Amino acid sequence: MAIEIEKPSVGLSKVAVSDTHGEDSPYFSGWKAYDENPYNESSNPSGVIQMGLAENQVSFDLLEKYLEEHSEASSWGKGAPGFRENALFQDYHGLKSFRQAMANFMEQIRGGRAKFDPDKIVLAAGATAANELLTFILADPGDALLVPTPYYPGFDRDLRWRTGVKIVPIHCDSSNNFQVTPEAMEAAYRSAESMNLKVRGILITNPSNPLGATIQRSVLEQILDFAVNKNIHLVSDEIYSGSTFSSSEFISIAEILETRSHRDSERVHIVYSLSKDLGLPGFRVGTIYSYNDKVVCTARRMSSFTLISSQTQHLLACMLSDKEFSQNYIKTNRERLIKRYEMIIKGLENAGIEYLKGNAGLFCWVNLSPLLEEPTRESELELWKIILNEVRLNISPGSSCHCSEPGWFRVCFANMSEQTLEIALDRIHKFMEQRRRN
Amino acid sequence: MAIEIEKPSVGLSKVAVSDTHGEDSPYFSGWKAYDENPYNESSNPSGVIQMGLAENQVSFDLLEKYLEEHSEASSWGKGAPGFRENALFQDYHGLKSFRQAMANFMEQIRGGRAKFDPDKIVLAAGATAANELLTFILADPGDALLVPTPYYPGFDRDLRWRTGVKIVPIHCDSSNNFQVTPEAMEAAYRSAESMNLKVRGILITNPSNPLGATIQRSVLEQILDFAVNKNIHLVSDEIYSGSTFSSSEFISIAEILETRSHRDSERVHIVYSLSKDLGLPGFRVGTIYSYNDKVVCTARRMSSFTLISSQTQHLLACMLSDKEFSQNYIKTNRERLIKRYEMIIKGLENAGIEYLKGNAGLFCWVNLSPLLEEPTRESELELWKIILNEVRLNISPGSSCHCSEPGWFRVCFANMSEQTLEIALDRIHKFMEQRRRN
Repeated sequence: MAIEIEKPSVGLSKVAVSDTHGEDSPYFSGWKAYDENPYNESSNPSGVIQMGLAENQVSFDLLEKYLEEHSEASSWGKGAPGFRENALFQDYHGLKSFRQAMANFMEQIRGGRAKFDPDKIVLAAGATAANELLTFILADPGDALLVPTPYYPGFDRDLRWRTGVKIVPIHCDSSNNFQVTPEAMEAAYRSAESMNLKVRGILITNPSNPLGATIQRSVLEQILDFAVNKNIHLVSDEIYSGSTFSSSEFISIAEILETRSHRDSERVHIVYSLSKDLGLPGFRVGTIYSYNDKVVCTARRMSSFTLISSQTQHLLACMLSDKEFSQNYIKTNRERLIKRYEMIIKGLENAGIEYLKGNAGLFCWVNLSPLLEEPTRESELELWKIILNEVRLNISPGSSCHCSEPGWFRVCFANMSEQTLEIALDRIHKFMEQRRRN
Repeated sequence: MAIEIEKPSVGLSKVAVSDTHGEDSPYFSGWKAYDENPYNESSNPSGVIQMGLAENQVSFDLLEKYLEEHSEASSWGKGAPGFRENALFQDYHGLKSFRQAMANFMEQIRGGRAKFDPDKIVLAAGATAANELLTFILADPGDALLVPTPYYPGFDRDLRWRTGVKIVPIHCDSSNNFQVTPEAMEAAYRSAESMNLKVRGILITNPSNPLGATIQRSVLEQILDFAVNKNIHLVSDEIYSGSTFSSSEFISIAEILETRSHRDSERVHIVYSLSKDLGLPGFRVGTIYSYNDKVVCTARRMSSFTLISSQTQHLLACMLSDKEFSQNYIKTNRERLIKRYEMIIKGLENAGIEYLKGNAGLFCWVNLSPLLEEPTRESELELWKIILNEVRLNISPGSSCHCSEPGWFRVCFANMSEQTLEIALDRIHKFMEQRRRN
């Protein structure tokens, strides 16, 4: 029996045993703290309020109303017409009706200022999968992608874990409202070179997560020029493009390409998803829109590993191709997000807290650096723990977004009711008052 | 302008430009030939009949009947109750109700002779994704998996393309009905060693695709012993386990482990899917069942890249947890597959064609080697082209399954109506008669 016990256990891959999945970040551990003691108005009023989750729950009633009035979209009914074809449909091109509806929806949320060809849309089970898939196509293991900071903590997993690709940060800071500059891009490029990393692309999020702000046209021009000059790819993750507070304030990279008559477009790829703008993360709907035919062809083949359920494609094709629904949804969702945003900034101002002026997204980028003992990551995480354990709010520390300036936090406002948001703001207000007294 | 034209185009990754995706195989080009000239009883009676697609269309009416009687499974109805929670559910653990239903279904199709713990089930968007995901976890780039031949052509993509892992074939042949032997496994292992490849695991399909036969208990014992002796993993792809003609003829690796009191189980992983047994490839439902907790934990994190739509999880949780439905489905589907199988072997016998005696799956493994000019891969592909272009049947050549013995073909029989199958058999009969005359 001793021999049995001493038998070596079977090994796993380097990817499996690495911690590049990033789940040890406070971004994710805050979620666990919430799960263990979740706030509930009646049953657990002193629980943790989840403000670390970029989820859109403000417009569900519009989706519910659609489903109630259009049972044909979700149900197969008498004799289940169309069920066979749908259940069998596993073509990695995706349902034509769904790609067409997605292309139209992407045009609508850009105010018609950019056109999208359904044949350049590739489907993937969420933006998580779409970003990983693009990385597999654009870069070899050991190569680098440049990503402006602060960035979505999940990128550490999505872009790096299974691909073996490195992220080199483009450091942005509050001196210019965290905008990307040509100097910062050059510095990141040199930094990659000094580490002997081959830079294959730059990945931006526009509107930015976690900043909650869109990228200005002039900055987009500079980013595209940089990608052209270095002969690298540009991935524009625009998953919050329908969650901008004003259509005119959002400029898609697609619009920049249109003004250039699609010169330089072979290096540009757009990622989109319905998880944020439509509030459907469970349905796992992501897309890649590429202007590069080789990328489209390869991404489509690769999408075999991450296809969207044809049942879900069918439902969303019906829903999004209903122009009346989609126009009303975009308009109403925008109005509600603005209302929420105004609630939160008023609450922050009343509490004497600075924030970055935002115009998009489901979160606000908040400056709590005056509360830090010292301007360090450690102090920031100390403050984060106090806010999590004493104020019982889970907000995301900037360091989990690789922000180079300590003291900034991402605070989400659309994944709860107005009443809960009021309570959260009240807790913040009391916390700040107490701080000032001490 | 000349400068513009001479600008180097932006490069893609080695993975992107490699042909490891395997789509140039006759297995896939046969599908294209079918797509260009598909048989239709009335509109195109001389078109190509698709016998290269392992799809189960014989039991759709049972699913349709369920949907008709249980609209609550697919529709949210008045007020769309449960829609919000479902649309938001993106936890990579998957819906508890769905995992429970899958565990029960897996037990049912094994006649209750193995137990499955829902907490060891990891979800992935299809077996394609499940097999890739496991490979990422079990092997590093450049390592090898041993796979008995003939094997499913898609494995060349699924196990190799993005993982960088190699497949080393375990050659099986007709001398013992293509069964795996200890000698063949040892030979493959030595072959990998001679190429300086580190063997990390062995992957079997049981019931076998393309053989259409289950693996005997004694052979499974030998395979597991081999994996234990070499201290490597054993992946058992059992996606046709509900499509066996008799429950007692299918032995799952899970049963072998139960007889060993789960000794050696940390190296064993089972892949399952609803694409074949339930005929739902479009819904992208795959699972990994691992007895290794580290693999479960890592696979779950990795499943972020390939989650199943929560809408689809909800529908299938309802459907499969309905015991009356699932028991009747398993029984009726089995009876219908047997009927089809008997149709095809009778047709083959009438045409004077040999085949491997099967007991599972949606296809028959057919010996056309007497028709080859020479016993070579080239002759096999010549014959394949004749059958595709003249007989207008798309069947899959054994060489696309890496079969080492030329002249074998996989012929699918469950993706068409009985009438179409009769016509296909009639064409085969005429073709053989004509051959004999010449």
